Amino acid sequence: MTTGRIYERMAVVGFGLIGSSVARIARERGVVGEIIAVDASEKHRERIEALGLADRVTGDIAEGVAGADLVVFAVPVLAMGEAMAAAAAALAPGATITDVGSVKGSVAEALAASAPDNVFVIPGHPIAGTENSGPDAGFAELFDGRWVILTPDDGREDPAYAEAVAKLASFWRGCGAQVEVMDVKHHDLVLAITSHLPHLIAYNIVGTASDLEGVTEGEVMKYSAGGFRDFTRIAASDPTMWRDIFVANKEAVLEVLGRFTEDLQALSRQIRWGEADKLHDLFTRTRAIRRGVIALGQESAEPNFGRDRGKH
Amino acid sequence: MTTGRIYERMAVVGFGLIGSSVARIARERGVVGEIIAVDASEKHRERIEALGLADRVTGDIAEGVAGADLVVFAVPVLAMGEAMAAAAAALAPGATITDVGSVKGSVAEALAASAPDNVFVIPGHPIAGTENSGPDAGFAELFDGRWVILTPDDGREDPAYAEAVAKLASFWRGCGAQVEVMDVKHHDLVLAITSHLPHLIAYNIVGTASDLEGVTEGEVMKYSAGGFRDFTRIAASDPTMWRDIFVANKEAVLEVLGRFTEDLQALSRQIRWGEADKLHDLFTRTRAIRRGVIALGQESAEPNFGRDRGKH
Repeated sequence: MTTGRIYERMAVVGFGLIGSSVARIARERGVVGEIIAVDASEKHRERIEALGLADRVTGDIAEGVAGADLVVFAVPVLAMGEAMAAAAAALAPGATITDVGSVKGSVAEALAASAPDNVFVIPGHPIAGTENSGPDAGFAELFDGRWVILTPDDGREDPAYAEAVAKLASFWRGCGAQVEVMDVKHHDLVLAITSHLPHLIAYNIVGTASDLEGVTEGEVMKYSAGGFRDFTRIAASDPTMWRDIFVANKEAVLEVLGRFTEDLQALSRQIRWGEADKLHDLFTRTRAIRRGVIALGQESAEPNFGRDRGKH
Repeated sequence: MTTGRIYERMAVVGFGLIGSSVARIARERGVVGEIIAVDASEKHRERIEALGLADRVTGDIAEGVAGADLVVFAVPVLAMGEAMAAAAAALAPGATITDVGSVKGSVAEALAASAPDNVFVIPGHPIAGTENSGPDAGFAELFDGRWVILTPDDGREDPAYAEAVAKLASFWRGCGAQVEVMDVKHHDLVLAITSHLPHLIAYNIVGTASDLEGVTEGEVMKYSAGGFRDFTRIAASDPTMWRDIFVANKEAVLEVLGRFTEDLQALSRQIRWGEADKLHDLFTRTRAIRRGVIALGQESAEPNFGRDRGKH
């Protein structure tokens, strides 16, 4: 698929899994002219150069964003405010400023805090990723068929802003994604249940399993094919990114965690009292959800996620 | 790989995902002479015939197990006792009787209850599976590199029994699996943390997500690629099989669930009070577990379980 050029110069600040994937696909599809990579890590910068992922690579944010008509912040959510502050004075008038953070409320505030008036700040979140990190982990097809949620500023009603939002949506569609516009608060609740709570639960069960008396860590790993191994994937995600998410989306996470815990207590009682029919009802109901996820193109229909492919 | 014939006639009672996979690999590797399929479902029996998975297909347990030197019970764990009772009078003297149930304490008791004295009862559990069910879901490579745990009767010290255990272990190795012998009680605790609790948590979070006020089921499915979709896989497992497991392994499941809940409460407090360092410590520690699971050959090293293979 070819798409016309949408931005002349894109600066990506934070060139990890997501940032480097945006750069790869944007170049492949020709939706941007020039790509500037900004990363604080010297090791990352060396890899970006070696992989030839950008037209220019720098560790200096102001230098990197100068002259860019699209700036994508792809750093951990608690680092967004500082990155924006470092960029602010160098931003080109009329530039579109977006991000890829998994929390939108606190990030929208952090970006707004130091943004000049003459740019368009449009927070965003591509719901895509893997458990790996760094510029080597990215790949061009990461966003293919996935959703990108944009959370534009409700307070800005000028047509130029609406135009900038439409342009950013075209950019993401050009990268293979589907685009949805959403209210910041609703985004943070939706993601708390579809992403943040799943990660919290996965981190927790892996922690519990590795500390359990009577079962060694070796046994847990050896016999993990009965289900446990699934959880180890997201529990292997970047620790800094996820620490920041739980701090930044505390309220919504605690809300859905409260609901999860209530439901788990009810399930615990059903097991204790042998209420087999109630268990069967829940286990039947949950089957339908996976069919829906597959039907919406968000999951492989192959058994075991296709991880046994080649085996049969 | 070729293996010599180990049993002359294998009867598999319950020809679903696991039962049909045992039959497929046993025939492929030539470790059994003849295969008799026993299944209570007429629909299943038709599929077994159509797929040509057995030498003979019957709905009658006694008829099916007659003359077999290996009987494999592959029905839901709470159905094991009844299946064994139906088979007992027809079992050939000296036959080895095993099962593939995910709980061993209650199954060992259920099998022993009606077993004649002149057979060798050796409960077993292959730690392998997918979220799919039925004879069509099975495949020959399911056990490849996976662990099979045998829990022989501690009380039987006769050399003939030890020989029967060794022979059954050879059978499973011939099917591509690795074999471990374990105490019944320890098995049930190990599996409670590596398989039963993960399923319980997955069923629970899918239930919570589909009932959450303020977020529609459609949104949950649409934006599931941020982590939630992983959980939908095991929450799509067979409802009857899993209802039985939680009833049959109640004590161990409630024990590990108690530990999980304690840890989750601690994590909840850390989020509430913004104890970012403690979160980061846990998230760093859990990364190592996945590396161990992969190193032990129990998981794909590819990002996202390899579900995006072909994409990059």
